[in-house]
Amino acid sequence: MAMKIGFIGTGIMGKSMASHLMAGGHSVQIYNRSRDKAEELLARGATWFETPASLAAASDVIITIIGYPKDVEAIYLGPDGILQNAKKGCITIDMTTSSPELAKQIAVIGQERGIACLDAPVSGGDIGARDAALSIMVGGDASAYECVLPLFRLMGKTIALLGPAGAGQHTKLCNQIVIASTIMGVCEGLIYAKTAGLDPLAVLDVIGAGAAGGVQLKVQGPRMIKGDFAPGFMLEHFVKDIGLAIAEADRMGLKLPGLAQAKKLYDILMQQGHERTGYHALFELYLRKEVT
Amino acid sequence: MAMKIGFIGTGIMGKSMASHLMAGGHSVQIYNRSRDKAEELLARGATWFETPASLAAASDVIITIIGYPKDVEAIYLGPDGILQNAKKGCITIDMTTSSPELAKQIAVIGQERGIACLDAPVSGGDIGARDAALSIMVGGDASAYECVLPLFRLMGKTIALLGPAGAGQHTKLCNQIVIASTIMGVCEGLIYAKTAGLDPLAVLDVIGAGAAGGVQLKVQGPRMIKGDFAPGFMLEHFVKDIGLAIAEADRMGLKLPGLAQAKKLYDILMQQGHERTGYHALFELYLRKEVT
Repeated sequence: MAMKIGFIGTGIMGKSMASHLMAGGHSVQIYNRSRDKAEELLARGATWFETPASLAAASDVIITIIGYPKDVEAIYLGPDGILQNAKKGCITIDMTTSSPELAKQIAVIGQERGIACLDAPVSGGDIGARDAALSIMVGGDASAYECVLPLFRLMGKTIALLGPAGAGQHTKLCNQIVIASTIMGVCEGLIYAKTAGLDPLAVLDVIGAGAAGGVQLKVQGPRMIKGDFAPGFMLEHFVKDIGLAIAEADRMGLKLPGLAQAKKLYDILMQQGHERTGYHALFELYLRKEVT
Repeated sequence: MAMKIGFIGTGIMGKSMASHLMAGGHSVQIYNRSRDKAEELLARGATWFETPASLAAASDVIITIIGYPKDVEAIYLGPDGILQNAKKGCITIDMTTSSPELAKQIAVIGQERGIACLDAPVSGGDIGARDAALSIMVGGDASAYECVLPLFRLMGKTIALLGPAGAGQHTKLCNQIVIASTIMGVCEGLIYAKTAGLDPLAVLDVIGAGAAGGVQLKVQGPRMIKGDFAPGFMLEHFVKDIGLAIAEADRMGLKLPGLAQAKKLYDILMQQGHERTGYHALFELYLRKEVT
C-alpha cells in the first residue's frame, strides 16, 4: 500500500534511504535544514515542505534521520515540531542514533496524542544505505512496527524489533560499544605488526581468517594500512555515539573500561581537529605514538 | 614423501595434529612429559621415545607444541635438548605460542648446527586442530618452509610464511592483541544489553550481521550469554600470550592501552583462580561488576 511518507534529513544516508522508498512506490515528502541537499530527490518527484510542522500534518509516516539528540528533541517535541502537528494514527520513525531515554519520552508523549513513535537507528553507513542493506534496530509498539515493516524492507536487510521504545537505541549503542574496543584492537594489532617489521597486509590476511576475524579488521584494516582516512563513518558521529553509550552506562551504574579507554583516545583526536575524518583514523594516533 | 616426524607435546591440540600427520602417511615418533597423553597415538602406530634427545636424533622433522617459552627454551637449548641432538639437515617447527626473541635465538643456534628452525604458532584452538583447519603463522627460512609445507597442509587451512625467524610468533601476538580488545568489546556490548533489559541473543543476531560482526562475537557471545565458560581456549594461556605481547611491545617502545586494559581485567580473573576456565570467562567479571 503506497503511503505518504514525510522524510526529514536528506544527508548522505537519508538521501539513499528516501530514494529507495520512492522506488518502492511511495510518495515522499521532504523537509531538510538545507534545501540543496534535497534537490536531487525533488527533481525525481519528491515534494518539498517549508517546515517540519506542515510536513508532519500531511504525512502518514514520518521518518527522521538527523544529527544529534538535541536536534531530535527539537524536531519532535518543539512547538513547531512533529508531535504537535502530526495526524492522529500517524507513525513516526526516528532513525538517528540518539538517546534511549529521549526515545522513551517521545513515545510516551506520542501515545498521549495517538501517534506511535518508533526508534529505529541503523548500522551499515553510507554504503549500507546506498545498497538498501542496512541493519535496522527497532524499539516501540509491535503493531506500528508491523505496519511500517514494508518500508524498513525497502531500506535494510537485517531488521529486528528489539523491545519497547528505546530498545532500538539501546541496541545501536551495544553495536557501537562492541565496535569501540574492536577498532582499538585492530589498531593495536596493526601497529604492532608494522613496528615488528611484518607486512601488515599479509598479517591481516592470515589473522583475518581466524579467531581475530571480523568486519572492522576486514574493512578498516586495509584502509588504515593505506592511510586512507576518508569518512565512511565520521569520527565526530562515532564520538557522539560513544558519549551516549557512556552516559547510559553511567545512568545504569555500569562500568565499561574498554569503552572508556577508547573514548580517551577519541577525545585526543577530537581536540586535534580530526572530527571530520573517518572514525578509523584512530590508527593515526597510534602511528604518531600519541596514545595514552 | 613420507617423513620421520618427531612430535613433542601431545596435549589436546597436539594429539589431533599428530594424528593428521599419521593419516597423511608419515611416521610419527613421540616424546611427551606424561606418557598417558600419548597412549591413543601409540595404540595407532606412533613410536614412543623416552627422551627429547633420542627423539631428536631419530627424526627428519621435529614438531613441538608445548606450554610456555621457558619449556621451549629448555627443550630446544638445554643440554639434552633438540639442537644438541638433532641431525644436520633436520628441520624443527615450534608451534607453541612463544617469544619472538627466543624464536630468533633458536634459529641462530640452529643455523650454526645446520638445523633450520621455524616458528609456526597456530590459531583455531582445539576445534581447529581437530578439523585440520588451523591458521599457521610461520617465520623462518623460506626453503625449509617449502619443505615442510605439505605437513602444514595436513594440519591447517590458512598457512603463511610471514618473514624470518620470529615473524610467526610476532604475527600470532598480533592476533592475540586484536582479540584482547575485541573480546572486551563483546563483553561490554552484552553486559550493556543485559543491563538495559534487552534480549542479548536478539541483540547478537542483529549487531552480528553488521559492522560489529566477527568471530569473537559469533562464537563467544552465545557462550557468555549461556554462562558456558568451559575452556575452548584456556584463560591462563591467553594471559600468557597477552604477557608476551606486552613484553614485546615494551621492548619496541610501543604503547597499547587497549591491551593493557584487557590485561588488567584478566589479572583480576587470574588472582581469583579462574586460570583454567575459557578466556571468554572475562564476561563473568562484568556480570559480577568487578571490572576496573
